[in-house]
Amino acid sequence: MGYELAIGDRSYSSWSLRGWLVFAKAGVPVKTVSGRLYSDDFKRLLAEFAPARLAPALRLPSGLVIGETLAIAETIAERHPEAGLWPADPDARAMARWLASEMHAGFTALRSHCPMNLRVSYLDCAPTEAVLADLARIESLWSMAQTAHGAEGPWLFGKWSLADAFFAPVAARIAGYNLPVGAEAAAYVATWLADPEFRAWRAEGLSEGPDQPFYKRDWPTRPWPGDARGSVVNPS
Amino acid sequence: MGYELAIGDRSYSSWSLRGWLVFAKAGVPVKTVSGRLYSDDFKRLLAEFAPARLAPALRLPSGLVIGETLAIAETIAERHPEAGLWPADPDARAMARWLASEMHAGFTALRSHCPMNLRVSYLDCAPTEAVLADLARIESLWSMAQTAHGAEGPWLFGKWSLADAFFAPVAARIAGYNLPVGAEAAAYVATWLADPEFRAWRAEGLSEGPDQPFYKRDWPTRPWPGDARGSVVNPS
Repeated sequence: MGYELAIGDRSYSSWSLRGWLVFAKAGVPVKTVSGRLYSDDFKRLLAEFAPARLAPALRLPSGLVIGETLAIAETIAERHPEAGLWPADPDARAMARWLASEMHAGFTALRSHCPMNLRVSYLDCAPTEAVLADLARIESLWSMAQTAHGAEGPWLFGKWSLADAFFAPVAARIAGYNLPVGAEAAAYVATWLADPEFRAWRAEGLSEGPDQPFYKRDWPTRPWPGDARGSVVNPS
Repeated sequence: MGYELAIGDRSYSSWSLRGWLVFAKAGVPVKTVSGRLYSDDFKRLLAEFAPARLAPALRLPSGLVIGETLAIAETIAERHPEAGLWPADPDARAMARWLASEMHAGFTALRSHCPMNLRVSYLDCAPTEAVLADLARIESLWSMAQTAHGAEGPWLFGKWSLADAFFAPVAARIAGYNLPVGAEAAAYVATWLADPEFRAWRAEGLSEGPDQPFYKRDWPTRPWPGDARGSVVNPS
């Protein structure tokens, strides 16, 4: 038996995206089972992964279920060291863990004002002061990582790492809600919009049924920035 | 240069307690520098550990500062494998990371209704339904861990592990606010109340100056359950 990952709607479940990216970027096979949020289907799915109470939840090959994206990330990084999911440099790795952990518990203003929604992009979402303060903090963390360790590539620590997984939904929010950020952060968002795994996830989500009413906002919209649909993971 | 840990008031700063326990239980020397919460002294302390914005923050021997208790825990566990901070069994370790991570981001009702306060114990704190639901979830997680992996000792995974560090302030809340829990959870709380490191931390906190007004509640009090003051870390 391999890994089995329970996720919510790909268009809306930001933690599911993070958990799935761990496997997709590591090249570790995982059977993904999804249920639509706010439905009995989702309750059935979570019951199968009890006692986890949120998506994503992971069933290990041993049969053990574990919840929480940080635990999933550390577990897969440890079991698949060849994937290099954390930065190789010890100080970079400590910093990457800090960024992932601060995301895991923080930025609640941004998360509640701008829930991830990969189906629509707004021209203006009237961000509050608290949302702008969260964005400023995120930009300073990104800049710290890229200044210290980002020389080798477009990701936070040069090469893609688990810190990027934790900020993928933030990049999606900046794109989707047209949030005001500086040039460095905009370049990082563009890196995510062009990423094959992100685009494949987004495309799959667009086919998962009707929009969820919970996420509807009345702000003026614009076309999704970046490719309109998705990409195959390994384009030929 | 060794490790340097910035912490808030020992009586009140639950995350500082978690971070300090990582070192105390590992037997890894750390220079602890504290500042009183809600004071200019604390702002000065955090400025010295910028860009961290919360306590605890750790300065590594390299000079790098990292924030976030989960990142501190993983970093010290990785750099001091001889300390055995995570359970040795891979499935137990995955479960321990899940428990620590769920604590890190969750249980907000309990945390806001019953902020950690090691200076007083209340007879009754009128817990809300949300607080009781958080407690029930915590009891089910503790029971899951102890049933699966707790045969060898009184801690969540038998031997002490980082999962225990994350729940130490919860045990302190159950003791301090006299929260209703079952016999298994009460035994786990008693284990913490008798723990030499916990008692030493509490004793130090009692000498850190006047009570902080933010934590004052009008509920009826009782003597602190367990030893009235502390213990030396290595009692002779």
